[in-house]
Amino acid sequence: MALIVQKYGGTSVGSIERIKAVAERVRKTVLGGDRVVVVVSAMAGETDRLFSLASQLGTNPSPRETDVLVSTGEQVSAALLAIRLQAMGLPAVSFLAHQLRLRTDSNHGRAKIRSIDVRRVLQALDEGNIVVAAGYQGIDSHGNITTLGRGASDLTAVALAAALRADRCEIYTDVEGVFTADPTICPNARKLSRITYDEMLELAGSGAKVLQARSVELAKRYKVPLMVLSSFSDTPGTMVVEENEAMESVLVSGVTLDRNQSKITLTGVEDRPGLAAKIFGPIAAAGIVVDMIIQNASADGRTDLTFTVARSDLPRALAIVNEVAVQIGASGVRFEEQVAKVSVVGCGMRTHAGVAARMFEALAKEGINIEMIATSEIKISAVVNVKYGELAVRVLHEEFFGTGSPKTAQKGDA
Amino acid sequence: MALIVQKYGGTSVGSIERIKAVAERVRKTVLGGDRVVVVVSAMAGETDRLFSLASQLGTNPSPRETDVLVSTGEQVSAALLAIRLQAMGLPAVSFLAHQLRLRTDSNHGRAKIRSIDVRRVLQALDEGNIVVAAGYQGIDSHGNITTLGRGASDLTAVALAAALRADRCEIYTDVEGVFTADPTICPNARKLSRITYDEMLELAGSGAKVLQARSVELAKRYKVPLMVLSSFSDTPGTMVVEENEAMESVLVSGVTLDRNQSKITLTGVEDRPGLAAKIFGPIAAAGIVVDMIIQNASADGRTDLTFTVARSDLPRALAIVNEVAVQIGASGVRFEEQVAKVSVVGCGMRTHAGVAARMFEALAKEGINIEMIATSEIKISAVVNVKYGELAVRVLHEEFFGTGSPKTAQKGDA
Repeated sequence: MALIVQKYGGTSVGSIERIKAVAERVRKTVLGGDRVVVVVSAMAGETDRLFSLASQLGTNPSPRETDVLVSTGEQVSAALLAIRLQAMGLPAVSFLAHQLRLRTDSNHGRAKIRSIDVRRVLQALDEGNIVVAAGYQGIDSHGNITTLGRGASDLTAVALAAALRADRCEIYTDVEGVFTADPTICPNARKLSRITYDEMLELAGSGAKVLQARSVELAKRYKVPLMVLSSFSDTPGTMVVEENEAMESVLVSGVTLDRNQSKITLTGVEDRPGLAAKIFGPIAAAGIVVDMIIQNASADGRTDLTFTVARSDLPRALAIVNEVAVQIGASGVRFEEQVAKVSVVGCGMRTHAGVAARMFEALAKEGINIEMIATSEIKISAVVNVKYGELAVRVLHEEFFGTGSPKTAQKGDA
Repeated sequence: MALIVQKYGGTSVGSIERIKAVAERVRKTVLGGDRVVVVVSAMAGETDRLFSLASQLGTNPSPRETDVLVSTGEQVSAALLAIRLQAMGLPAVSFLAHQLRLRTDSNHGRAKIRSIDVRRVLQALDEGNIVVAAGYQGIDSHGNITTLGRGASDLTAVALAAALRADRCEIYTDVEGVFTADPTICPNARKLSRITYDEMLELAGSGAKVLQARSVELAKRYKVPLMVLSSFSDTPGTMVVEENEAMESVLVSGVTLDRNQSKITLTGVEDRPGLAAKIFGPIAAAGIVVDMIIQNASADGRTDLTFTVARSDLPRALAIVNEVAVQIGASGVRFEEQVAKVSVVGCGMRTHAGVAARMFEALAKEGINIEMIATSEIKISAVVNVKYGELAVRVLHEEFFGTGSPKTAQKGDA
């Protein structure tokens, strides 16, 4: 008898009919002999509706009250699913954050989980119940309601799975799993049957939206077997697992595109130690995450420094950089509001050379200029002009996965 | 510096614009130098919408999960009002039941308040905050969310006022106070400037919808000065106070109509001791409240027993009565699904005779037959055919208040 945590996202519980379908799926799992903890998001559109109500009553509504407001979305979903399960003759009980004792810090809107006390959940399971937990919400040490950030019901599910030492955490969504590329860009993208935590992390951090990066990190840390699959079909999804020898033959597991990047260049910067700290210190202090940094070789003792930030952070980043530019005597500040970052991810890169060369050659063959390059152990990212973003993804997908008709990718496909 | 509890009902917070108007009213109170605790209901229509979602997912949804679901309505209102107050530069903080530590028993859907721990509320007030509490909800000793019954945000307000030893509890609603009769039935009904707890209790129990009877009882027990007034205008409302000598001159304070009554008659019942217990025992055990009971004089040792119940309880009451009728050898069971109960309420009846006679005479003059009569110290009720209900109210209002043009009733008006 396994213990399974199932998480259903907003579209999966987006209507009365969808909630009935989810209940049916939970019933099948229970009838299969497993114990189930379900984590639900708010019904699709509800969180936006609540945010909109708040914005009509005040610009910059306080984070504490916003959390009190928007956390009702998941509360409604949890109660409705429990009601449906009970109507089907299945004992079920809903749990909110203050009942789960899901403790977080007090950073409203983006709180970090500190602990979960699962004793009451285990007791409810032992009494034969299906537990339906409201995702996304927590409670701080003063009893205030917090939320964990948009899309963080995944995080609730993984954290519960870790705390409960669940056998599996299933993330149900509106796509059938993790694909080698976004199928709306690459029609011949293939679903992966397995992927490693590290690859999934790099994919999530490079623009793939199927799983939230924080959830994958947590799953990796606690070795929670994670599964991504569709609540709209019965096809098998993608397992996210630890790396093992059998998987080494996978060279590349996916190609991603992130169009929400901006590029800033400081020109004519004096090339001496300590200047990078002068520039990036204040940016970090403002909570702005810098993604890629390159510094051009300098001949005359002056250099150009280019870096990327999320588009939403561009105005604040520019304000800081313009100020610093004056202090350090840079000759100017340039920026591009939208650039595209294409990434190729695969843990095979650890042991196989040549992926970068193939990537650059494929892009060059299509006349796509690479503006910046960044690499990690298992990822190579290139910034290109945004108008070439989708073309770049298609070119790279063809290079590493071929143009065969869509099918599920198997281990060793690449 | 007074401490005032203000409660705003569903229509008072029914839209973004209405919430802004409520915030403006709270601001005025605060600028007047008073400390304010606000209790809010769900936005008009929201509780019904949530109940309807539940009913689409299961007949007889579990009371526990229904409470988790519907309590979100007040949570949303509380957060939105706090957000609005903050946007106006007024420090405000919302409190939910688990933060108020508003403990109840575990009777979901109609829980009774056991205790409130107001230390955190007082602390928030001391820190200069307006406290915005979600009405209607509680928490049981296991941390489950409970609700106090429809319309029970009044109860939350009175209980908070009692626990905080507030100087006044103001109940804002969509009418301007307590009237001598329903103005939609009696266009010349007058607003009362003062009324006693006992009169208000009898009015609330006889069909007047302006205040929930449980709230009045609680206010009476803890001597909470209660005020009923409109959030849609600035006219003074009605004070609900303890009886004092100056008020003795008020003979009748109001005429009410309750059309949600059903009448059941057991015919040919043997007239011997113990039979009433056989009939009303099982009805009470089923949680059905019997309002009026009359037993006709019997000549042949057999009698007719007639009583009234709330219309919503009629099917269950009939099922029980039909069974008992067979056991006790009654000759039959008759019922009327809808009858009207008209009541005349006034604490002057304690000391003045003749009110009943005037009431019966006025009804008789219009040819309205009285089917049942019940009296308390300060109330006389008569059951009449439902088609005469509104006429009876008008006739009695004219008898005790005259036909003068509408104005605010003063002490001693009658």
